[in-house]
Amino acid sequence: MLYGGVEAGGTKFVCAVGTGPQNLEGLEIIPTTTPEETIGSVIAFFNRFQPQISAIGVGSFGPIDLNPASVNFGKILNTPKEGWAQTHLIAKMGQTLRVPIVFDTDVNVAALGEATWGASQGTRSSVYLTIGTGIGGGAIINGKPLHGLLHPEMGHMRLPHDSQLDQFSGICPYHGDCFEGLASGPAINARWGIPGESIPPNHEAWKLEAHYIALGLANIICTLSPQRIVLGGGVMKQAILFQIIRRDLQKLLNGYLDVKELRDSIDEYVIPPKLRYSGVLGAIALANIASDST
Amino acid sequence: MLYGGVEAGGTKFVCAVGTGPQNLEGLEIIPTTTPEETIGSVIAFFNRFQPQISAIGVGSFGPIDLNPASVNFGKILNTPKEGWAQTHLIAKMGQTLRVPIVFDTDVNVAALGEATWGASQGTRSSVYLTIGTGIGGGAIINGKPLHGLLHPEMGHMRLPHDSQLDQFSGICPYHGDCFEGLASGPAINARWGIPGESIPPNHEAWKLEAHYIALGLANIICTLSPQRIVLGGGVMKQAILFQIIRRDLQKLLNGYLDVKELRDSIDEYVIPPKLRYSGVLGAIALANIASDST
Repeated sequence: MLYGGVEAGGTKFVCAVGTGPQNLEGLEIIPTTTPEETIGSVIAFFNRFQPQISAIGVGSFGPIDLNPASVNFGKILNTPKEGWAQTHLIAKMGQTLRVPIVFDTDVNVAALGEATWGASQGTRSSVYLTIGTGIGGGAIINGKPLHGLLHPEMGHMRLPHDSQLDQFSGICPYHGDCFEGLASGPAINARWGIPGESIPPNHEAWKLEAHYIALGLANIICTLSPQRIVLGGGVMKQAILFQIIRRDLQKLLNGYLDVKELRDSIDEYVIPPKLRYSGVLGAIALANIASDST
Repeated sequence: MLYGGVEAGGTKFVCAVGTGPQNLEGLEIIPTTTPEETIGSVIAFFNRFQPQISAIGVGSFGPIDLNPASVNFGKILNTPKEGWAQTHLIAKMGQTLRVPIVFDTDVNVAALGEATWGASQGTRSSVYLTIGTGIGGGAIINGKPLHGLLHPEMGHMRLPHDSQLDQFSGICPYHGDCFEGLASGPAINARWGIPGESIPPNHEAWKLEAHYIALGLANIICTLSPQRIVLGGGVMKQAILFQIIRRDLQKLLNGYLDVKELRDSIDEYVIPPKLRYSGVLGAIALANIASDST
């Protein structure tokens, strides 16, 4: 019995079939063009493995409607990605492939992938935060992706922003200087006039960037109390960030939460992802969980 | 079969025996003096119902150690409450009463009480935030109190603080101007020189207070995405706050999370508690859950 996984992103759809990182029967990267073309290629990929696939998990860019009671269930909602708003992604896949399709946000499945086989393995609750073109966070609580009213939108929390120290007003079209507005890749680019990839490790940009990330993590810890935090995404490729973030986070928490993970072993608490394909593997894990519970 | 519940607070311990708000066999309020005297009275109260009690739930002030693998499991840790630091509350009760004792934070059990019989009934995920001498938040996710690394400490998240608009520097001994440092009852008192109870509803204090609470709620929604938020505690007795908080919260989120709860029915989304004794009833619910799962 095999599971399918899809990491549905704004630039590419990563599809895979298998049961885990050591057991992948196939992996294909499909560019995101129009919904018809892209979903058509996704379906063609999975058809090659039928009838062996028992369920397919999908981790999608959003916002997406995860409420089973809603008429829009399984739909990509008002995404800025051209042509994709109001796409019935799940219904289209399910109708043709005739297997159960389970879905969640891209970051929730990445969090699940890392919790199942990667950096958060062995924990019951963890957060995966990606800092790149946007900032998104997924959370696993008691082994399951966190939803509720909607799904976490950690990139849009509000942080202290000292406008004397950092006069940049933020680029979030909804909130201006929310976490994403201040600290995403495009925010770095807009603030300094150069893309993050071209900013040297000793530039003051990274100290400020690390500070906003540490503030975001402090708030996530005060709210969710995760047992581990995984930081991924393009901005985190600047490896110097990890050490500055960890030190800043300890300074911000100031010993209030007296646990060894934050005191002595913060290097194992705030860490990079371990999997090359957290998202699509998490989607496979999601399909696996859904099959077990039905 | 009956359950026992304890709401262990810094000024009083509320104890009850029964199965729910309509079925209480006894309720007693015991002042918090020394650990010996107070715990002694608690044990005497429950002894009157033995051997009918099958489990006792305790919601305690903290910080408390909830990690079953820890040597300090069940212990009140570094509380500023004189004489109570390092008190083995759970062990002392369990040794004498010889029934299973389950425990959690005071706010997590209040959240559970409201989710089981009160304002959050019918939801699977909710938050209970108390704004009084401190600010504390409890969360129920998939029907269970949220833990992880430790437990939520929502009062210590960092919020935007415009020090031109509000020159008060905050009173949290650990973080200065965190949520609790800016918006707890003692913070209101310290900022305006008068206790909240004496500040009239049309005073500017309430607009500022509502703004910090709305910021806190926005961050809780972006992180936890609860299906309902209950606001309790002494400061929330100023009823005018609810409407200002709801409007401010909508302004802060700015339509980004396009769900009817935040758009059309925010009056049913951010609400006061419904139970007179959320805490002790939640402790009874906790004892009930624990008995069911063993």
